[in-house]
Amino acid sequence: MIGKVLLVGAGPGDPELLTLRAVKAIQSADAVVFDRLVSPEILALAPTRSRKISVGKTAKAHSVPQEQINELLIDLARDGLAVTRLKGGDPLIFGRGSEEAAALAEAGIPVEYVPGITAAQGAASSTGIPLTHRGLATGVRYVTGHRAKDQPLDLDWSSLANEETTLVVYMGVASIAEIAAALIAHGMPRHLPVMAVADATTPRERRLISRLDEISQALAKAGLTAPVLFIIGHVVTLYRELPVCLPAGLFLDDTRIRVHA
Amino acid sequence: MIGKVLLVGAGPGDPELLTLRAVKAIQSADAVVFDRLVSPEILALAPTRSRKISVGKTAKAHSVPQEQINELLIDLARDGLAVTRLKGGDPLIFGRGSEEAAALAEAGIPVEYVPGITAAQGAASSTGIPLTHRGLATGVRYVTGHRAKDQPLDLDWSSLANEETTLVVYMGVASIAEIAAALIAHGMPRHLPVMAVADATTPRERRLISRLDEISQALAKAGLTAPVLFIIGHVVTLYRELPVCLPAGLFLDDTRIRVHA
Ligand SMILES: C[S@@+](CC[C@H](N)C(=O)[O-])C[C@H]1O[C@@H](n2cnc3c(N)ncnc32)[C@H](O)[C@@H]1O
Ligand SMILES: C[S@@+](CC[C@H](N)C(=O)[O-])C[C@H]1O[C@@H](n2cnc3c(N)ncnc32)[C@H](O)[C@@H]1O
Repeated sequence: MIGKVLLVGAGPGDPELLTLRAVKAIQSADAVVFDRLVSPEILALAPTRSRKISVGKTAKAHSVPQEQINELLIDLARDGLAVTRLKGGDPLIFGRGSEEAAALAEAGIPVEYVPGITAAQGAASSTGIPLTHRGLATGVRYVTGHRAKDQPLDLDWSSLANEETTLVVYMGVASIAEIAAALIAHGMPRHLPVMAVADATTPRERRLISRLDEISQALAKAGLTAPVLFIIGHVVTLYRELPVCLPAGLFLDDTRIRVHA
Repeated sequence: MIGKVLLVGAGPGDPELLTLRAVKAIQSADAVVFDRLVSPEILALAPTRSRKISVGKTAKAHSVPQEQINELLIDLARDGLAVTRLKGGDPLIFGRGSEEAAALAEAGIPVEYVPGITAAQGAASSTGIPLTHRGLATGVRYVTGHRAKDQPLDLDWSSLANEETTLVVYMGVASIAEIAAALIAHGMPRHLPVMAVADATTPRERRLISRLDEISQALAKAGLTAPVLFIIGHVVTLYRELPVCLPAGLFLDDTRIRVHA
């Protein structure tokens, strides 16, 4: 009997942001294979008897190469196990879920996806900053600041330099200076507000509000560390208007936004 | 005693895609105020004693004007009720959640957000089409095809015409012909694959695969009706590779994609 692999989104951190289906997938797993960003509270939902295997990728190094993760998943399923592959956020947004699914499909292993709240949504709901808002953002775009080793960032700057679209940057700590400079060079206003959120939806959540031309320095000064998400755009100006935005843990650098300056 | 309003994402349809926090918010509500896209199975989670109030917007008409919804929420909270405002998908993505929150904040009512799986994630996980994928899409962008009455579509076409970004169109049934034509005019390949998904993650889910220059006719012929989401981009070519993509309910028009033709 061949097993099955569920590629499951574990959400941004807060265990209450798991979907009901994700909870079921974890609770019924024989083996849980998880990334670094999946919290201990979430892993605790797995049956005691289940195998729990970390393939934790860190920002700098992929501790387990992708091919090995694929092989591990295939082996576990061939052993007849119900495998739950847990990924931070959503498995189909910067999660390489579809690469694992393709390898599994090729090996004849049944695969299913369970979506998860992506980091952008977690940061939006916890800070109260909408991703779209009439008059401020007609849409939202997710990009990654991650680059292949020694490669330049492969982003289409003229397309990205669009003030009416909220821009969310994943994996951008190392490249935010370059991203901000390129956006300004392609016409984005220097004073466009930016919010950096670290560890969104967890007790460690920290927020920093700055502007495009100052975000890189402000971030360095504040010492926010990964995982960090950047939300760039006029929607950030809504930050102070919402009561939900005033919990403890609020962190503001001295570089305040100058709204529509 | 003043009440509180939770602006809660109900996800794309499948009740199992609710987050744990959303379930709690529904189960503890004194009043549930909901949109048309929120399913009866989800409403059934609310306590029997709770007030359930539909403010269902249909595609053509806003049956209850936004200002009236805002007032309703304020009145319920002033009556001291725990109000759960249920919205399809995520409240901060094309959900006008932040408009309601602003009105509530102005009235001094405490507000909190609970994120939800947005329609794009629901459609992606159920069809097996990733929103990002190495070599096919470096990012993803959500836009709306909705236009203000008698107004032209307010979209930045040259920025949108970017083959390396998966483009997801919400509320696009009425405008997909115009959107496809404008994208082609701005340089997107005519044969770029498009998937339309109706009622994603529900038992009524239907899918249509076509190409940019044929999607509008194919949609009319297939008769898919709202809610429909369009996923435009090379990621759609992954459709056949994943086993998860073969359940019953699969609907393919005779306009097949011609991959990278
Ligand atoms: C490899 S990507 C995975 C994204 C994930 N699949 C998702 O949908 O959120 C990892 C990046 O996601 C972002 N991220 C994930 N969880 C986060 C959190 N709780 N707070 C802030 N950023 C987060 C960070 O930018 C991090 O570098
Ligand atoms: C007013 S918008 C609300 C979007 C919602 N806040 C979200 O995050 O998904 C309504 C549009 O969402 C899309 N939509 C919502 N649920 C859907 C589903 N189950 N299947 C396909 N499209 C859906 C359709 O494009 C629909 O016209």
